[in-house]
Amino acid sequence: MGAEKWKPKETYRAVIVILDGVGDRPVPELGGKTPLQIARKPNMDYVASVGITGLMDPIEPGVRPGTDTGHIAIFGYDPYKYYPGRGPLEAAGIGVRMNPGDVALRCNIATVKEDNGKLIVVDRRAGRIRGEYVKELVKALNDAIREVDGVKVEFYPATEHRVVLVLRGSNLSPRISDSDPGTAQEGQPVREIIPLDESEEARRTAGIVNEVVRRSYEVLRNHPVNKERMEKGLLPGNIIITRGAGMVPRDLVKFSERFGVKGYVVAEEATVIGAARILGLEGEIPEGSTANLDTDIKSILKATLRAYENGYDVVFTHIKGPDIAGHDANPQGKIQIIEKADWLVGEIIKRVGLDRTVIVITADHTTPCTVRDHSGDPVPIAIAGPGVRRDDVTAYDEISCMKGGLGRIPGKHLIKIVLNLMNRPLKWGA
Amino acid sequence: MGAEKWKPKETYRAVIVILDGVGDRPVPELGGKTPLQIARKPNMDYVASVGITGLMDPIEPGVRPGTDTGHIAIFGYDPYKYYPGRGPLEAAGIGVRMNPGDVALRCNIATVKEDNGKLIVVDRRAGRIRGEYVKELVKALNDAIREVDGVKVEFYPATEHRVVLVLRGSNLSPRISDSDPGTAQEGQPVREIIPLDESEEARRTAGIVNEVVRRSYEVLRNHPVNKERMEKGLLPGNIIITRGAGMVPRDLVKFSERFGVKGYVVAEEATVIGAARILGLEGEIPEGSTANLDTDIKSILKATLRAYENGYDVVFTHIKGPDIAGHDANPQGKIQIIEKADWLVGEIIKRVGLDRTVIVITADHTTPCTVRDHSGDPVPIAIAGPGVRRDDVTAYDEISCMKGGLGRIPGKHLIKIVLNLMNRPLKWGA
Repeated sequence: MGAEKWKPKETYRAVIVILDGVGDRPVPELGGKTPLQIARKPNMDYVASVGITGLMDPIEPGVRPGTDTGHIAIFGYDPYKYYPGRGPLEAAGIGVRMNPGDVALRCNIATVKEDNGKLIVVDRRAGRIRGEYVKELVKALNDAIREVDGVKVEFYPATEHRVVLVLRGSNLSPRISDSDPGTAQEGQPVREIIPLDESEEARRTAGIVNEVVRRSYEVLRNHPVNKERMEKGLLPGNIIITRGAGMVPRDLVKFSERFGVKGYVVAEEATVIGAARILGLEGEIPEGSTANLDTDIKSILKATLRAYENGYDVVFTHIKGPDIAGHDANPQGKIQIIEKADWLVGEIIKRVGLDRTVIVITADHTTPCTVRDHSGDPVPIAIAGPGVRRDDVTAYDEISCMKGGLGRIPGKHLIKIVLNLMNRPLKWGA
Repeated sequence: MGAEKWKPKETYRAVIVILDGVGDRPVPELGGKTPLQIARKPNMDYVASVGITGLMDPIEPGVRPGTDTGHIAIFGYDPYKYYPGRGPLEAAGIGVRMNPGDVALRCNIATVKEDNGKLIVVDRRAGRIRGEYVKELVKALNDAIREVDGVKVEFYPATEHRVVLVLRGSNLSPRISDSDPGTAQEGQPVREIIPLDESEEARRTAGIVNEVVRRSYEVLRNHPVNKERMEKGLLPGNIIITRGAGMVPRDLVKFSERFGVKGYVVAEEATVIGAARILGLEGEIPEGSTANLDTDIKSILKATLRAYENGYDVVFTHIKGPDIAGHDANPQGKIQIIEKADWLVGEIIKRVGLDRTVIVITADHTTPCTVRDHSGDPVPIAIAGPGVRRDDVTAYDEISCMKGGLGRIPGKHLIKIVLNLMNRPLKWGA
């Protein structure tokens, strides 16, 4: 018996605004307040005032999330079970369709030289090879290496010198080591990939990827592109080296099937779009988005409203700026982008109406200006909409929301709470 | 290492009052308040005032419980692991003993006609056959079909045209489809039952139940009862069609063994009694109970006190009315039944004493008047008794209890919290 969906007469839709890294800790230069406590944000505070608030641990208390795992949790999936790893996220982020059971790896096109039968890494990025060079080499790889041991092999150009390697077949495992010797390890040989557990799948996958690496050198070493590069005094891109193997979990059930609603993600970052796509969510990076403080907030608003008007039940809207300001130890910048996002929240409320839409303000993790990195502190959350039980919290910030009526919830529960308020809850029992 | 029990000198007992569906959302015609906020309920508020309060998610945040799963959680069992499904609940509800590993199905006595070798359902309820007719046909089935493939087969008459089919044996599975084509599907053939997973157990169980359905037609088609019915112009009950297969989980440990205390359930509904019995709890539906607003509350009180006086350690008392009022979108009715239940709480306190008994007021789920069905909102909870850490909440309702000292707990944890206050906690460690 699976969890069935239940359909009452009146249902609502939802917009979930995710302020990347907006959570913070007391900042000395803000007099011990957090940027959220200082920012002028009447619309977020309105959501808190007429709604219910609380704290959310994206992963679990004290555990530092990535933007990827924080979003996977907000999208309703247990991040410990459904984190596919970096390879599949990068693949999905550049638009490669990833299916349950597929393995993907992040690769560099690199320069190696032969030395006593070993391949020594001279430059992990082949002199920062890019553009048409990469495209042509990837085409040569795809033409020459289509299959290894019954597994389909695909190469895709990513940013700059990066390539994504996708393996499609049964009985694969992501539990394998890297052939890339790592940053600042030039002069080391390309590493033999080894299985990281005892399974037959890991042993087999390690063998396949070793074979792919070996054959990539055969294909690329004498490729005309590399001859041309060497004539110009550029390093040849004569091998691919691999890292970050990951697999889309085999038991992954796509978002619309699992939750019975259609979701759309407006995000400023390929990582978020990649995570969304792997979970079966559609999405886009809006034109004009800079993933920084100067982002085109109107364009993000437009994309959000377009998705809403196109009939998506749940629209997730991601703003990157607060995280950037946290990494930069820039509390004033964080305040600015919060205020910019507050305008967005106000416009969304005007257009979608709290009488027929559930609005959520939250974050994928905390990025304290005093830490300059993500931390494991919980994030504040505020939910307003029809039928919400109102608590007496009147501000959206880390301290006010401690007293909220939601209490402290794990990130993976958020979507279930929202579905319930949409009158489309998951159901268990008669 | 199992969870051991710990025996201090002074132990207490508990009465847990379950107000079915009492949780609600703001109701416009109550000025945005909930029925619990409006009702005059000095005794429940007294429990909140001298005790500790909080919110409880019967299943998990946002997930809509049934009365069955909500109660299974309150009885201390993880409803995802121990929900046996509708068949076993109906069987246990009519007093059939259900053991771990047994499969039960809900059946209808139906009318079919042969058409091109197929059995077409003419009426899923055989003209609402009932009473002696059903008893005689069930007797005929039990006489003729005692065993299939080494599995014991038993039929029991349930309400009206309904029959419960119980299979007892090893290697059974509840993961099979229905032969009943479903509501408003008259004119369709009886469906072939198929296994719903790849297991040998599901394949085997599907085969057994197909055989039972086939043989039921052989047994019933020419039965004297049906000849008599046809002479009277009534539809013959010439087959049983099955749905809602479920199994009592094989690893279920009975309540008294698992928690080290004796429990008793006074409930207004067979579903609740059924869930209780499957978990090894004894119980009764009190005489005069109507499972509605006009129920005989004095009779419920009497049954509760009788169980307490008979030495049961934990008495669960279930009041159905609030749920009915929620389904009927009747906030005034909900207020009335809350006030009636409040009288019950007052009398219980007088008789059992908060100096030697832990009193709990809670619910199995929320049934908002604005939704007219169960929802996934948490329910308020209040616990008073000796040794309870008192918080400063003074009312039992959805909003006040948000600030309670219990915080937000899952339903399955409640019984452990109560056992602890009874000084009979489960123990883990030295």
